[in-house]
Amino acid sequence: MKQAGIDGNTKLLAIIGDPITQVRSPEIYNPRIVKAGVNAVLQPMQIPTATFDDAIKGIMAIGNLLGVVVTYPHKERVLRYADQIGRIGQAVGAINAMRREPDGSWTGDMFDGAGLLGALASLGQTATGRRVLILGAGGAGSAITMALAAAGAAMIGVFDLDANRAAELAARVQTHFPVCCARTTEPDVTGFDLLINATPVGMAPAFALAPFRGALHAGLTVIDIVPKPETTSLLALAREKGCPTANGAAVVSGQADAVLAFFGIGSSEAPAQAKLPSLETRS
Amino acid sequence: MKQAGIDGNTKLLAIIGDPITQVRSPEIYNPRIVKAGVNAVLQPMQIPTATFDDAIKGIMAIGNLLGVVVTYPHKERVLRYADQIGRIGQAVGAINAMRREPDGSWTGDMFDGAGLLGALASLGQTATGRRVLILGAGGAGSAITMALAAAGAAMIGVFDLDANRAAELAARVQTHFPVCCARTTEPDVTGFDLLINATPVGMAPAFALAPFRGALHAGLTVIDIVPKPETTSLLALAREKGCPTANGAAVVSGQADAVLAFFGIGSSEAPAQAKLPSLETRS
Repeated sequence: MKQAGIDGNTKLLAIIGDPITQVRSPEIYNPRIVKAGVNAVLQPMQIPTATFDDAIKGIMAIGNLLGVVVTYPHKERVLRYADQIGRIGQAVGAINAMRREPDGSWTGDMFDGAGLLGALASLGQTATGRRVLILGAGGAGSAITMALAAAGAAMIGVFDLDANRAAELAARVQTHFPVCCARTTEPDVTGFDLLINATPVGMAPAFALAPFRGALHAGLTVIDIVPKPETTSLLALAREKGCPTANGAAVVSGQADAVLAFFGIGSSEAPAQAKLPSLETRS
Repeated sequence: MKQAGIDGNTKLLAIIGDPITQVRSPEIYNPRIVKAGVNAVLQPMQIPTATFDDAIKGIMAIGNLLGVVVTYPHKERVLRYADQIGRIGQAVGAINAMRREPDGSWTGDMFDGAGLLGALASLGQTATGRRVLILGAGGAGSAITMALAAAGAAMIGVFDLDANRAAELAARVQTHFPVCCARTTEPDVTGFDLLINATPVGMAPAFALAPFRGALHAGLTVIDIVPKPETTSLLALAREKGCPTANGAAVVSGQADAVLAFFGIGSSEAPAQAKLPSLETRS
């Protein structure tokens, strides 16, 4: 085990959740922070729901805290502690990062979908004008959908086994990003140019094929957010058909870049979201 | 800069103070924690006095927090958050470390004097039966005096330019450790076998000689807690006279061992204080 170059000047980034032992973010973020030449560390903190309010108030009172990365189950609960919330965070109704501004106020936003934009960028692509079929309207699917809508996707078809959940997400897109055409859809890829699997289907050991219909073709980009295995059944099939593909690792990498850019770290790789002057005061 | 081997299982030790940038403890403690094979890091946290209560409550609500190391100006203020206080902490009226017990309660104690015992041990000596002249009855001097009294010093002569401060410290020793004979004294080494400089006199760049009278001799051990320079004027003179000596670095090292042992880390080097079953419930 290597050890921290922590000294009196080291700034703190907290990642809060419960449980916390499963988080991989410290191992992903900390080498990037070092590479960016910033004296800060991302430190996991297990915050039980029962003591969440005491804990977050206390953490926010730490003078050398840059901000907080938020994971399950606190992404909605932390909202009330942000003075400003970015438009994606507003649209999703949850945030996964909150930073201290120079004036002492706190800004939160949701970056769980930002990694998808990074994965697209790794293929030399953008979200602008895309017709997207997204499978899964849960937490990840919602964040991805809003990130794509904010980044200029032309239309987004949402499929979920829970039809109500899909309908609710499509409606929220219309409310927050009216120029993006969002609607519920069957999982048929016909007419789409970007397919995203935001369901857990395909995770090892089951390794099932994410449910879709229609023919995969070279004009369809396929991204699977499932982190393991590296190549899901969906991605293997897509590559066979000549589709450009990106996997869960590319999404995770893109999200780390986006979150760190939000904290002012490694901004050379900053994604569009972090640069948007789009923060609105919480109503 | 090396970077942390921080992952989801990394436990947190907070060091709290204001200011915090000057603390050297992370650089001293973290390599020892690694060497002990423990997945934990000591992370500096700047806690302003104005938000101290919010901050400490929040920090104590972090599930994977092992405990807190406390520095200026919070050593007295943090007392009320400890459910049990060790006898040295009670005697000093301040603590510099607080740990979470398996039952969720909090135990605090003062280790600012424990490093002196470690410095003695590095010379193959103990405090038992010693006749000690201590120069300086401030925070460090008080903690050292109580640590020596707890460890069995036979008598302690306290000198301070502020005679009231010296008298108050001697009286506190009598209250808490009645078998140790403590009294105020002139700074004359005659009759003592251990001389401790717990004043800042001798620090670079002034480099003055700590004020004492009488003849240094080989039967007198001399310890100077001044951290820089490595060899103060007092230590240089003592070595010339054949006295066994230990410097501020030995004291700092001994204190780090004692504090970490209190947190259950690296207990092979645990000093006597941490092993004492001497915790009393706060009255």
